Amino acid sequence: MQEAVKEAYKALDADEVPIGAVVVCGGKIIARAFNMTETLQDVTAHAEMQAFTAAAADSGGKYLKDCTLYVTLQPCPMCAGAAYWTQIGRVVYGATDQKHSNIDRKPLFHPRTEVTGGVLEQECMAPLKLFFARKRRQQVGK
Amino acid sequence: MQEAVKEAYKALDADEVPIGAVVVCGGKIIARAFNMTETLQDVTAHAEMQAFTAAAADSGGKYLKDCTLYVTLQPCPMCAGAAYWTQIGRVVYGATDQKHSNIDRKPLFHPRTEVTGGVLEQECMAPLKLFFARKRRQQVGK
Repeated sequence: MQEAVKEAYKALDADEVPIGAVVVCGGKIIARAFNMTETLQDVTAHAEMQAFTAAAADSGGKYLKDCTLYVTLQPCPMCAGAAYWTQIGRVVYGATDQKHSNIDRKPLFHPRTEVTGGVLEQECMAPLKLFFARKRRQQVGK
Repeated sequence: MQEAVKEAYKALDADEVPIGAVVVCGGKIIARAFNMTETLQDVTAHAEMQAFTAAAADSGGKYLKDCTLYVTLQPCPMCAGAAYWTQIGRVVYGATDQKHSNIDRKPLFHPRTEVTGGVLEQECMAPLKLFFARKRRQQVGK
């Protein structure tokens, strides 16, 4: 998860909402990504989507059954639905997504995907807090 | 929708599960795409995802509030979740997705997105029927 947090700080440096993700297979990181919605001007360019596409390139498009996604924020429904298609073995997330708390993600993941939350939660929240504090200062400064 | 069906036939020609999509804004098609999961070796490369990314490129990353997505098959949870982020005004689909019928898509779409299904259903189903009949013949031939 510390590697996913590093990705989140790269997003923070790029003035993106700082969310980072890595995909690990057989003890090796096969994909690392951060949220690029601003850079790519594409609202679907979440860290997880980028990580899944990168992992697919690494694995030759095979399912990610023996892999783990580490992501600093709980996946949104789109990313949970994408995880379903990858059949990823495990999803580990840090902070809880308060914004879509009304949507139960469990049925969106593949039934064989093990999901764990709250890992290094404070470390995962830290770049998000910095980002939104900066945005508020910018708003006040306008 | 007929343009989305044309895209589905392009997928059929490419030996992809034939699902097509177009995004229409102000009476103009700004994006057209078909399922490319095999070609791109990426299980998340659904027609809708490709269409949203193409539409984002056309619109400079703006929300698609005044646009309509026409897609030949009911969007899966991932694509419904992606539609949420685009805030697309309207989603029109053809055939019903039987595979994930246990998941209520309604809460996954943006509350302002109007969703209509069953449009040109038979025409949208036709390439899918051709595809799966061909796959069955190939299995028998093995």
